[in-house]
Amino acid sequence: MAIPPGDHLPRYVCEACGSIHYQNPRMVVGCLAEWQGRILLCRRAIEPRKGFWTLPAGFMENDETTEQAAMRETAEEAMAEVEILAPLALVNVPHISQVHFMFRGRLKDGRHGAGPESLETVLADERDIPWGEIAFPSVRYALERFCEDRRRGTFGFHVSTWEKAAGG
Amino acid sequence: MAIPPGDHLPRYVCEACGSIHYQNPRMVVGCLAEWQGRILLCRRAIEPRKGFWTLPAGFMENDETTEQAAMRETAEEAMAEVEILAPLALVNVPHISQVHFMFRGRLKDGRHGAGPESLETVLADERDIPWGEIAFPSVRYALERFCEDRRRGTFGFHVSTWEKAAGG
Repeated sequence: MAIPPGDHLPRYVCEACGSIHYQNPRMVVGCLAEWQGRILLCRRAIEPRKGFWTLPAGFMENDETTEQAAMRETAEEAMAEVEILAPLALVNVPHISQVHFMFRGRLKDGRHGAGPESLETVLADERDIPWGEIAFPSVRYALERFCEDRRRGTFGFHVSTWEKAAGG
Repeated sequence: MAIPPGDHLPRYVCEACGSIHYQNPRMVVGCLAEWQGRILLCRRAIEPRKGFWTLPAGFMENDETTEQAAMRETAEEAMAEVEILAPLALVNVPHISQVHFMFRGRLKDGRHGAGPESLETVLADERDIPWGEIAFPSVRYALERFCEDRRRGTFGFHVSTWEKAAGG
């Protein structure tokens, strides 16, 4: 590690070629997708939190937009086509240098199924959401804000921070 | 480049130790800060777009929240303390694998000045914004949405994509 000229933090610098390897937070982008009032949930087939329930979401890739990332992850994890409607929530996760960003959307035809990273997928009524088995605090936050907003009849964009003490 | 097991895209893999170097979009986080109705602008002292006007913004660092990144960049580039009020805009910039995220905020005491990456800073009335000399389309987008929202009296969160053809 060395502090490059004009910089203020130590960076990984290759001793051979001098190229600087910046490390920045990664975005995890996903979607809360509705179909006839029910919400698409995936049960995780992989660690961390294998067996727990989540919204389709994953690391954003280079060369794509946040909307494209959310649609791709929904296709990969839940084999579902989704129309993106609006941003729903941003959750800072500084202790692992991530930013979780969730859209809300609508399934195009109601079809879904378990992709390779999911054990199963369901369309859940709000009263059937397995609140005790949600994989991550950021997923719980997005689900809670969505359900509140839907009851109130107006949707907003919500920002929060996943504090390590609260989320493990 | 090689496609790791269970992955779907080629990644940089170290031939010596096998560690995988994922490359993901980077977040540029900043702030539109108001003081007595005027907006804090910085004239860039560095490339790209040296000499053009911008909002204080820069690459988010590990271990910080988006709000902390916006406050840090406002301190570094405009020597100003800002209170973050709400998210203002997200602009996808897929052709350079970035996501630009702007908050709106309020200066704590009205003080500001040029940090090392700025030639000068000003508090500009809306009618004095140098629209022909704005550094980046994402900064223009945030300024336009803010001015529209302020005239209307309700603030929202706005999402857009900076298309390469439109922005150079």
